[in-house]
Order: sequence, then structure tokens, then C-alpha cells
Amino acid sequence: MKFGKNSKIEIIAVGSELLTPYYQDTNSLYITQRLNEVGMEINFKTIVGDTQDDLTVCFNTSLERSDIIFVIGGLGPTEDDCTREVLASTLGKKLVFKEEILEKIKERFERRGFEMPSVNNKQAHIIEGSTILENKHGTAPGLWIPKGEKVFILLPGPPHEMKPMFENSVWPRFQAARSHFVARRVFKTTGLTESKIETLLSDIYPLPPSVKLTTLAYPGQIELHLIAHSQKSAKKADDMLLKLEQDLQECLGENIFSSSGDELEEVTGRLLRRAKQTLAVAESCTGGLLGHRITNVPGSSEYFCQGVQAYSNESKLQLLGVPADLIHKCGAVSREVARSMAIGIRERSGADIGLSITGIAGPTGGSPEKPVGLVYVGLCWEGGDNVLKNIFLGNRELIKSQSAQKALDMLRRHLLKYKKERQKDHPS
Amino acid sequence: MKFGKNSKIEIIAVGSELLTPYYQDTNSLYITQRLNEVGMEINFKTIVGDTQDDLTVCFNTSLERSDIIFVIGGLGPTEDDCTREVLASTLGKKLVFKEEILEKIKERFERRGFEMPSVNNKQAHIIEGSTILENKHGTAPGLWIPKGEKVFILLPGPPHEMKPMFENSVWPRFQAARSHFVARRVFKTTGLTESKIETLLSDIYPLPPSVKLTTLAYPGQIELHLIAHSQKSAKKADDMLLKLEQDLQECLGENIFSSSGDELEEVTGRLLRRAKQTLAVAESCTGGLLGHRITNVPGSSEYFCQGVQAYSNESKLQLLGVPADLIHKCGAVSREVARSMAIGIRERSGADIGLSITGIAGPTGGSPEKPVGLVYVGLCWEGGDNVLKNIFLGNRELIKSQSAQKALDMLRRHLLKYKKERQKDHPS
Repeated sequence: MKFGKNSKIEIIAVGSELLTPYYQDTNSLYITQRLNEVGMEINFKTIVGDTQDDLTVCFNTSLERSDIIFVIGGLGPTEDDCTREVLASTLGKKLVFKEEILEKIKERFERRGFEMPSVNNKQAHIIEGSTILENKHGTAPGLWIPKGEKVFILLPGPPHEMKPMFENSVWPRFQAARSHFVARRVFKTTGLTESKIETLLSDIYPLPPSVKLTTLAYPGQIELHLIAHSQKSAKKADDMLLKLEQDLQECLGENIFSSSGDELEEVTGRLLRRAKQTLAVAESCTGGLLGHRITNVPGSSEYFCQGVQAYSNESKLQLLGVPADLIHKCGAVSREVARSMAIGIRERSGADIGLSITGIAGPTGGSPEKPVGLVYVGLCWEGGDNVLKNIFLGNRELIKSQSAQKALDMLRRHLLKYKKERQKDHPS
Repeated sequence: MKFGKNSKIEIIAVGSELLTPYYQDTNSLYITQRLNEVGMEINFKTIVGDTQDDLTVCFNTSLERSDIIFVIGGLGPTEDDCTREVLASTLGKKLVFKEEILEKIKERFERRGFEMPSVNNKQAHIIEGSTILENKHGTAPGLWIPKGEKVFILLPGPPHEMKPMFENSVWPRFQAARSHFVARRVFKTTGLTESKIETLLSDIYPLPPSVKLTTLAYPGQIELHLIAHSQKSAKKADDMLLKLEQDLQECLGENIFSSSGDELEEVTGRLLRRAKQTLAVAESCTGGLLGHRITNVPGSSEYFCQGVQAYSNESKLQLLGVPADLIHKCGAVSREVARSMAIGIRERSGADIGLSITGIAGPTGGSPEKPVGLVYVGLCWEGGDNVLKNIFLGNRELIKSQSAQKALDMLRRHLLKYKKERQKDHPS
């Protein structure tokens, strides 16, 4: 096999569910991103069901038009899964039983206290002449199947099985074949709209021809993806981005929270750890989402001590000491109650910082004065507190997610300020 | 052209951006849904860039394997858009200039106060022998291009242009050709592995030829998608599923939590509401995810009163009254502490039911006796309590999501039992 910039690459996603209106292939996006990093681009993507005839047609087509063919999915134990069988017969190769694979599958079941059902037997068969790609997160092994100068790479469909298998067994081979260098940066921002960013960045255009900038907008988060290409060296590609990075940083400042791919909760967590500050949260309309995001970060127990989901009015009294007459006078969704919740959780938990959210996630519960999407985020620290009022658009899910995002960002900006002040007081 | 159940249908999405890691074709989902309604299924989806060679290969392949071929995108005025030109040359047909199309494009620009740029000229060329599909929301017309017994249907890429064109000019032809009716059901299950389900369902195979069953596995959730076809009537298709539905219900029983598309938190919420029971939760390793899922359901404030994210050991004492010596003796991740957390949150909140989760989400914190993935789920109600021990596989995110899923399911099964007992005590 010779891999290169001119190899034609095809990704075939197999699964009848991918031909319904309900599911999309996402595995190919992941593989595309990784191959792009070594300067390889995808030529074709094909989606086909678990149907012998259609699969046969697709495999034959890919053999004619492509050099490197990823085939993802249809390796499961059930009757409809037939990728392995159809590919073997298309290539005119036999399926061979491998005792060592069966042992691993059996072990996997035993570790969970189950006996392996007999249907899983078929997953222990591989296509002759292929290399086994170990599956550490599922039962179906992958296969690397050379065919003349071409190669088929068979991977399991579940992303949590596919990705580690790709990283461990497939990626190193592509990395070794690299003929092309790519530098990439992702700047994640929050607090600005897409058009505001466009305006702030107007001076950086036109970009050099070997650099590409793509803007991706999510609710509460806008990402700037920069890619530079060089045929000479990684350093060359990287250098092209350096100047542009500085320009971006100057234009967007603290609105950029990450240039390394980190999520907002990871960035905020790191700031908390460095400041040796602990955090407790009080959530109303987000119902636990804020705590969930904070605790998605491994090691978050170092700075996150506790939270409460104070959903009912009574629980705001009981868990946070929010005065009943304050709720009565101002309403549960108000600047005053948000502040009282942040103060309450901080005092009761003994944490350094208290962070609170109260709002109307909808679809009901809104009024002309307090519409659906009205959300107050409160922050309380030693010697101060602050509350931000927000109006978020979208459905319940979007309002919850933008609220949690805003709370994390409010905390992040507070910690940045705190850091600067400390540096002023104690210059090193 | 003869359309029918056996027509092979292919959707080709054209656009180099669809071969990057950032964009997905969504037009095909829309077309799939509409065609499914008249009993037609998609056989192949192809994604290809705006590249002459690759486009030619795709069009030739589709002519060989498919009867009805949708080609979407690449009809714009810019240089990279070449779908129209490449398809004409693949089919050996000429491009013909149409004065009336040019007039419409010019008018469109004039209405907005602009003069038509000369690049738009090329959009006034159609493939000879084709029917024009009017574009009321953009400049590029669509084309209906017969080729022997087959047909190519050319549509613009922007969804707000594609959808109305499909509805006005394409859908009526398919509706008229309807030879066919479809019924559909989705059964969602939890508590069983994919292979266990396969084993339990072995008696229902072989299925009638006009019925198709697809299994989709997610961590902690397995879905069975059933589709039945009839050439006679919608009722006939529905009747075919009735018997199968009963069989599935018999084989899988309470492991099926929904046959209407509802999520587990919606089903559980409904059971709580009907039983007039309120709920409070105590989360350790899930950090708020359980409360987040419960409060994703509109109106959940009716039965969900509060929760605590008792992440640190101290907070388990402070917020839930878990005895310090119990944590010391058994460890924070133990059957005893899970029980004490469920009892604690129930008592302190005054809710009818307390639900707790404590476990090791990883990646660190595991030991040979208590590995990463060990999770206890506790439930406490009037007159009883219960704790389930689980070992979940996967990364931190997967362990958290399976834990929340398990807790919701434990609550669901409890409420089902409670419902049955009440029905026994108070037969209606």
C-alpha cells in the first residue's frame, strides 16, 4: 500500500438506520478530521443499509474508484449485521474462526457477570489475510484488509468503540505515511454574536491562500477554526498561523476562552484549581446541568464540593435560606433571588465561591414581564457578589444549555479578574 | 418512468464542505422522510465534493445501480459549482440556454435593487430534454431529467430553496405514484443487552417479508425499529405490526419502556404524576445529570422538588445526614452509603421518593475491589428501600450516562410495581 496526498479515500457507513430520517453518520466526521491533519482529504462518502445486494454493489464501486476504503458498522452480533460476510464474499476471501477473539469476547461478558450468548460467536470470524484491530470497548474486532495496492479498513459502528480503535490501530499507520503538514487551531469564544465577531475581525482579511478560516456557531459558543497547509514542514504550517493567532487574540480578547480545544468547564476548572478556590452551585431551571458539566472534568472533586437543585420554592428556602418574603415580593426568577441563592450556597457549603441560576426554561411559565428565556445568573465570592440578567432564545433544552454556559463564563471572567488583581498585589 | 417499491433510490449530496469535519448533509433526511411516507426507501446516499472527476464517477455509478437519483447542490453561480455541467456531459446531453430563466433571475436581483452579476448567466442553462423545476426562493432552477427508464432530479443545496421546490414540483409526482403504505413503531428498552434481546426475540423470526426490524444500541438503551409495508392500505400495514407488537411485548415485558418515542425521563415523569408521588434526588458521581434529565421534561416541577449534588464526603454528611463512620467503614461508594443517601434526601426534602447515585466515574479513583464503573443506585419510599449494584464500562461520560439511565429505570420499575399493587388493592 502506498498512501499519499493523491490516494482516493472513501468512507462507507453501513446501517439501515442511517437511511432513515432519524440518524446521521457522525463517525466519518471524526475520521475526516484526523486524516485532514496529515493532509489527506476524503473523496467519497457512501451510506448504505444492512442489505447484502446493496452492500455488494457499494464494495465493488469503492474498489473501482478508491484506494483507501473505511467501512464502518454492521459488525454486531445480530442477524441483520452482515458487513463482514458480504465484504469477504465481494473480495473472494474466506471467513476464518479465531479462538483468541472468542476468548476475549467471552471474558468481556464474564467481567460483567454474564454468559456470552451464542449469537456473538460470529464476531470471532475474520476475513483471511487481514490484520485484527483490537476492540477494547466492545465485542466486534476491526480488520485491516489489504487488497492489492488498496486497503479496506473495517471498524465498528458505535463511536465509543470506533474512536479508540481508530486512534490505537489505524492512526499510527496514517501518521507514518504523512506527506503533508497541517497546522490547526480552534478558538472557542463566548459572549459575542457571529456578526459581532465578523465585524471585529474585518481587518484580518484577506487571509494568505494557504490558510482557511471557518466559523461555526453554537448556542452560546462561536468557534473559529483555522487551518494552514505546508508541503515543507510542520513548523512552516505552524508559523503561518502564529501571526494570525495574535491578531485574533487582539481583536477578541477575553471572549476567547480556549485555543486548545478545551471546553468551558475545563478552562474554568483549571482557573479554580490555580486560584485554589472551591465552588458550590445552586441551580433552579437548569436542574443539575451546571453541576453535570462541571463534574464532566476528571479531577473536578478537587474544587467542586457540592450543589443543590433547588427546583421548588420550598427547596430554595430549605436548602439555601432564601427568605420566603423575598420570593413572594420579587418572584423566584429575579435578580434578588439569584443573589440570595448564590450567597446561600456559598455560606452553607463553606465553598469560596457560590454560583446560582434561576430562570424560566419554558415552554410554559412565562409572562409579558418575565418571558420564557429570562434567566438570572448569580455569583458570590469573599467580599462581593454580582448578578447578570439574560434573555435566551430557543426551546427548553437551548435555554438550559445557554444558562449553564453563561454561568460558567461568568465564573471564568471573575477568576481572570481575580488572577490579574493577585498578580498586581504580588508581582512575581 | 415507473416508480415503485422496487425502484432503487439514491441521494447524491454535492459540496466540498460536506467532506469536511464540520458540515453534514441534512437535505437527504427530509427527502427520506417524505419518500418513506409513500412506502419508498432510500438505498444509497453518496456525498461528493465539487470536483469534476469525482462527480463523473458518482453519476456513472448511480446510473448503474439506481433508478431514481436525487442530486442536491452545486447549482450556484460560482466557479466551483459544476453539477449541471458534469451531469450533462455524463449523460451525453447538451446544455441549452433558456431566455425565460435568465429573465426570472434578473427580476429577482432587481426586486432587491441589484443588477444581476454576469456569473449568474450560467444558471440559465438547462440540460436538454429536462423539465424545469421553478425556484421561488433562489436563483438556481431545479431539473427533472429522464434517462431511459430512470430519472435524475436536480435540486439546489440551500434547504430553504430545496424544500419548497421539492414540495411544489417533486412531491406531487411521487404521491401520484404511491403504490404503497407504511406503518412504523419504535420500541425503546433498557436493562437488557443487545444479545440478550436477540436471544429473547429468537422465536419471532423469521419476520413476514413486508416487515423490517432494525436494532439500535446506545449505552443503557436499546431500540427496536419496526416498519411494515402494504400495497393495499395504511390499515393493512398497521395490522401487520399489531401481532408483532404483542409478541415483542410478551418477549421483553417491562424492559420496554416506550413504544411512542418517549424518553425514559418522560415515561418516569408520567408514572410519578399518575401515582401522585414526588421525587428528590441525591447525586454523587453523576454531579447533576440525573436532575438535568428529569427537568428536561416540561412540567417536571409538578413532581420533582429538589436534588443535591453531594460530591464531597463532607457534603454527604451535611446535605444528607450520611453518618461519617458509615463512610469511614464502608467507603463513599458502597451499598450502605447509597441507601443512606436515598433515605437522607427523602427525609430532608419531604418527597415521597428518594433516589440516589454514588459511584466511581473515573478515570482515576478505582481500585481492585472498587473498580472504575462501580456504581450503586439507591431508592427509598414509604415502607422500604433498595440498592442496586452495577458495573458500567466506558469512559467518564458513559459511566455517568449509564448511571443516570439506571436510576431512572429503577424508579420506573418501582412505580410500575406500585401501580400494580394499588390496582390489586383497589380494583376498579
